[in-house]
Amino acid sequence: MQPLVTLTSDFGTRDPYAAAMKGAVLAACPQANVTDLTHEIAPHDVLEAALFLAATVPYFPPGTVHVAVVDPGVGGERLAVAARLAGQYVVGPDNGLLTLLLRRHRLEGARAIEAPAFRRATVAPTFHGRDIFGPAAARLACGAAFEDAGRALARLVMLDLPDPISAPGRLLGAVVHSDRFGNLTTNISLDDRQQAAVRDVRAAGHSLGGLRRTYGDVAPGEALALTGSAGFLEVAVNLGRANELLSIAVGDTVEVLLR
Amino acid sequence: MQPLVTLTSDFGTRDPYAAAMKGAVLAACPQANVTDLTHEIAPHDVLEAALFLAATVPYFPPGTVHVAVVDPGVGGERLAVAARLAGQYVVGPDNGLLTLLLRRHRLEGARAIEAPAFRRATVAPTFHGRDIFGPAAARLACGAAFEDAGRALARLVMLDLPDPISAPGRLLGAVVHSDRFGNLTTNISLDDRQQAAVRDVRAAGHSLGGLRRTYGDVAPGEALALTGSAGFLEVAVNLGRANELLSIAVGDTVEVLLR
Amino acid sequence: MQPLVTLTSDFGTRDPYAAAMKGAVLAACPQANVTDLTHEIAPHDVLEAALFLAATVPYFPPGTVHVAVVDPGVGGERLAVAARLAGQYVVGPDNGLLTLLLRRHRLEGARAIEAPAFRRATVAPTFHGRDIFGPAAARLACGAAFEDAGRALARLVMLDLPDPISAPGRLLGAVVHSDRFGNLTTNISLDDRQQAAVRDVRAAGHSLGGLRRTYGDVAPGEALALTGSAGFLEVAVNLGRANELLSIAVGDTVEVLLR
Repeated sequence: MQPLVTLTSDFGTRDPYAAAMKGAVLAACPQANVTDLTHEIAPHDVLEAALFLAATVPYFPPGTVHVAVVDPGVGGERLAVAARLAGQYVVGPDNGLLTLLLRRHRLEGARAIEAPAFRRATVAPTFHGRDIFGPAAARLACGAAFEDAGRALARLVMLDLPDPISAPGRLLGAVVHSDRFGNLTTNISLDDRQQAAVRDVRAAGHSLGGLRRTYGDVAPGEALALTGSAGFLEVAVNLGRANELLSIAVGDTVEVLLR
Repeated sequence: MQPLVTLTSDFGTRDPYAAAMKGAVLAACPQANVTDLTHEIAPHDVLEAALFLAATVPYFPPGTVHVAVVDPGVGGERLAVAARLAGQYVVGPDNGLLTLLLRRHRLEGARAIEAPAFRRATVAPTFHGRDIFGPAAARLACGAAFEDAGRALARLVMLDLPDPISAPGRLLGAVVHSDRFGNLTTNISLDDRQQAAVRDVRAAGHSLGGLRRTYGDVAPGEALALTGSAGFLEVAVNLGRANELLSIAVGDTVEVLLR
Repeated sequence: MQPLVTLTSDFGTRDPYAAAMKGAVLAACPQANVTDLTHEIAPHDVLEAALFLAATVPYFPPGTVHVAVVDPGVGGERLAVAARLAGQYVVGPDNGLLTLLLRRHRLEGARAIEAPAFRRATVAPTFHGRDIFGPAAARLACGAAFEDAGRALARLVMLDLPDPISAPGRLLGAVVHSDRFGNLTTNISLDDRQQAAVRDVRAAGHSLGGLRRTYGDVAPGEALALTGSAGFLEVAVNLGRANELLSIAVGDTVEVLLR
């Protein structure tokens, strides 16, 4: 099988960074299938990248090697790491990028990237994507042993994220992402019993009623709450932009009332 | 030959949707070459996607499987379909995405996507790209029989698009797309005899004269009309943005006067 | 090894041009791995593309075929060319796209693209990316001889770019690119001796002191100068946007004072 390497970054595609990183992967493992996931993470936004990875990595086949580079501390003291989870690898800076993936998947191993064979001969202090993370991913994709990357790490840096607050009959969470359609993703994950018991979802003064199945379950322009495709509570407007029509933004509180 | 799967959507690339769909294809057919065509179709704009597909699909090799997801009715009553045309496959919602392709290519077969083997085990009602269209395309790419997807469909949903109006000595059409360069594509397709007989093209009060061959046939900053690369009449400005300089927008009328 | 073809253009991805070009490559060489570098070069900006190619091509493996299409003169008198440098190929219009690559890499050969086998049967005068450059790259990737493309060219068109001015104790250059992070790349390349001798970098009335190694060497929000990852002097702000915070734009003068 052709080795698969994916790329996730905040580089954009107008600048040469994403392409140079892609070249570095292909130079070190020419038989790899190197595919872009995104380069449009907001600059330096580690949390946005952590959410992105949690919603994408689980859908890839075992053995996939993901390069994830949102790296405001490049060239400083943060470690370069390779982690194994869900039978796949993620390579990047040790700054919290895996925080949300590791809530649902066990860390199967983590290594500092130290071995010279896992880096380019010359490393620019401001571009570890091209000179460390890309080449390390290429080595793993081309069959190098995970253990040869460097010393084992017992734990990785985690972002300190507030969990939803659970109280009798209610849950309090927050909007964590507003997507291209204006749909609002929250950090609230409901189990089957809870989903059946929702009697109202409230946000920014709006009362959205119980959970719906899909957008078209309400009239065009009407607001609703549903369980989104990644398993989190979502606030939306059928055929409309919920962020604008309901005046809700990332960070706003969302309240779920249970029967 | 490595199976080829392309992706077209209105997902953007900042959100995780396009990447999760790509993962779902690769998980179901790891040997596929999965390549992005675009994820920048305007949200919910089925017509824009239909124009895009008509200008791209014909250039791909036989056997290519295209996933096309612009799906405002996701999870509702519209069907999920796989269609065969030009020796290739297009998989997506049955909402008119193939309208313009099917004006130039015969529908060689259409199937509802119903077989469990053509879907993920769990289908989120709001993300059929990841859970139905991607996996169905992967199955076709990896060699599953088209006929096994589900029941045959005699016809697909078509968009109701106005055709240009033909009158003695003139044609009346409309601008259907404004591209990144500010060039304006119309719905007017001229045969060889008509092309030779054009004496003037008029739009938004401008008189552009007869057809030119390429942009540089007029001075920089000057407007012109030509036959665009997809075979439709195009209004442009050499080294300038016709949409701004001529104040023409999608939907505006374009008139062709013939000798 | 799977042949590798990359695509660089100013087409954007919302319009069908980049995807149609990709299809044309795959139709002519179905076993190729076709990968996007960027389609976000500013429309018609040959210099931006030349900078992009110089910062990306050198990182790709030998034998890679790059398609580079920023082509304001499409269909006019400029030649279509294939060039060999650094053991790789670049195919595109002869309008200066290779100017910066050729400052660091010897031109190993250049050919006009004239042979019918290197073009589509029908060539649209406004879309040589799809009808000439893509197919020519596909032919090279699939093993056609470089010499068969067309007649040898002794030289290529070069952009006329001002070099930095060197005076006793100082260098005067200019900002040539502002990236997604607001970092400012200049045209000033310093050798090791010069790097050690920098006592101040000045731009837009700011005095940035000597060269730093990476962004985090100064406090957040503080400005600095360093040698960027492509080897050119860069002006940046740690965790901030230098272009906005320092009011510096492309074209502004940057002065380096040496000991």
